[in-house]
Amino acid sequence: MTYLQEHAAEIEAAAARIAPYVRRTPLMTTDLDARLRLKPECFQVTGSFKARGAFNAVLELKRRQSVSRGVVGVSSGNHAQALALAARTAGLPAVILIPFDASPAKVAATRTFGAEVIQDGITFENREERVRQVMAERGLSLVHPFDDWDIIHGQGTAAMEMLDDDSEIGTIVTPTGGGGLMCGTALVAKARNPRIRIIGVEPERADDARRTLRSGALQVLDKAPDTLADGVRATAIGQRTFEVMVARNLIDDIVTVTEQEIQDSLLRAWLGLKLAIEPTAALPLAAWFAGRVSDDGRPVGLILSGGNASPEVVARLLGTA
Amino acid sequence: MTYLQEHAAEIEAAAARIAPYVRRTPLMTTDLDARLRLKPECFQVTGSFKARGAFNAVLELKRRQSVSRGVVGVSSGNHAQALALAARTAGLPAVILIPFDASPAKVAATRTFGAEVIQDGITFENREERVRQVMAERGLSLVHPFDDWDIIHGQGTAAMEMLDDDSEIGTIVTPTGGGGLMCGTALVAKARNPRIRIIGVEPERADDARRTLRSGALQVLDKAPDTLADGVRATAIGQRTFEVMVARNLIDDIVTVTEQEIQDSLLRAWLGLKLAIEPTAALPLAAWFAGRVSDDGRPVGLILSGGNASPEVVARLLGTA
Repeated sequence: MTYLQEHAAEIEAAAARIAPYVRRTPLMTTDLDARLRLKPECFQVTGSFKARGAFNAVLELKRRQSVSRGVVGVSSGNHAQALALAARTAGLPAVILIPFDASPAKVAATRTFGAEVIQDGITFENREERVRQVMAERGLSLVHPFDDWDIIHGQGTAAMEMLDDDSEIGTIVTPTGGGGLMCGTALVAKARNPRIRIIGVEPERADDARRTLRSGALQVLDKAPDTLADGVRATAIGQRTFEVMVARNLIDDIVTVTEQEIQDSLLRAWLGLKLAIEPTAALPLAAWFAGRVSDDGRPVGLILSGGNASPEVVARLLGTA
Repeated sequence: MTYLQEHAAEIEAAAARIAPYVRRTPLMTTDLDARLRLKPECFQVTGSFKARGAFNAVLELKRRQSVSRGVVGVSSGNHAQALALAARTAGLPAVILIPFDASPAKVAATRTFGAEVIQDGITFENREERVRQVMAERGLSLVHPFDDWDIIHGQGTAAMEMLDDDSEIGTIVTPTGGGGLMCGTALVAKARNPRIRIIGVEPERADDARRTLRSGALQVLDKAPDTLADGVRATAIGQRTFEVMVARNLIDDIVTVTEQEIQDSLLRAWLGLKLAIEPTAALPLAAWFAGRVSDDGRPVGLILSGGNASPEVVARLLGTA
């Protein structure tokens, strides 16, 4: 089998593995444009696509018996909730490191799914180092939010469903932070049809993936970017996502959007599309509204990554609408 | 054919007639309860189920050649937008009477669809009288928001789709104002299976339909109720919906919810279900959360009527969440 065929087979296997635990989200049309297709992962279990990868990774760790005392993850957002639920479902303890200044609502949601949360002294900067300590001390298995093939294959199931529902789609647009969703999407879509174009969207303030793609060398942000799209604050893509994006050249383009464009698109999603998405999920919409998704006449699919928006943020933006 | 068979056949015909113009909304599951099914009509064309009835009525008027100079309607909300779009699609002029104190956003939306809006001197109280004048003066055909069989049959297509997607559903819950959606739902559901239970939900402050069902005599509210659920402010049900509800006894129960329950359910829909619905669409959810939807063990379908919420209301409620 070729590289693409192997990965696509893993994504098909992931879909079967996680099917009892995740939701097959609908593919939606809108009044905006007859060719637009939306995959609203805000309706996914735990409120984001991250449940797909987390369930696949945890179930695979368990099947391979390569987990003994439980799993550990680092996240202040959707991966935390997804990993916590996947671990609980698999009967494994989960420990999640969340920076001390994260939103209390997200910490509470993670605890709701039964995970132990460690916040004391955790910062965005020291978290990778601290998670290695916790792994070593407690004998836990790390589930990385994006630099893990099981995670990437799980995330690819969203695009797989999209193409099962509409095989005419010619372009798929996803947000990109660490690149897991975008690369899983590229692997399954290019295996089905190499002509399908894959476009990632980043905030202008977090354009490391765009620069990495253009330069062919890994670009790293100095610090976590200050963006409304809090799901894509990773400072660099991973080794595996670099492989897919640069070495294998499977991403057609990465475009950026401004904070104002993210904000405007979020409001249009809530008020016009009636989709209560989070700012990160507004990235593909923002690129589409801005005309940065090049058009080949075939349907365009946007993966709207999640719906775990902070009520304060939405209230503030709507108040100015 | 029996009464139910005749109406069900009309609903099937309506579905075929309006199919090119309306959206087949998905039937959704949630993390709340495995037996819950949601029909999110917030994603319908014009943002509410009203497009179903309006397209059916306008297309039927045109087919019967019983419209000469255009259509006229009275509405401050979703029926206005739906009728305006249906008329424009059918190539007919539309005049909509909207009370002078209605939300400017809703007036603007109606004009966007090409309708002429008359607001001068129109009040909630005098609007029925004024529409008769406009009809007479201009030779327009009235499209009533609920007391019209074509409207009722169009609205019934939502429940038809719901039962096509899940034939195990044992209870269907809808909001009720004039009763068009609830009665269309009852006609199609009872024709398919008389054991399917139909439950309407009203705000406690607008409980005329509940009292009408209990007493068997038409109950009329003194004035338009002051409720967050602005889609169900009709002061009484119509002659045709009275026939379905009382004379034919096709509604199993009508329950009420408080303003606080509507508000709480709206927030749970936005933040928990990621559905940006309007307050009226929260009525079935509020009844379900409050335990007022009696349970026979089969799946329960809730029709969430629309998503045209006022941004100010959403911002205010989210700000208190």
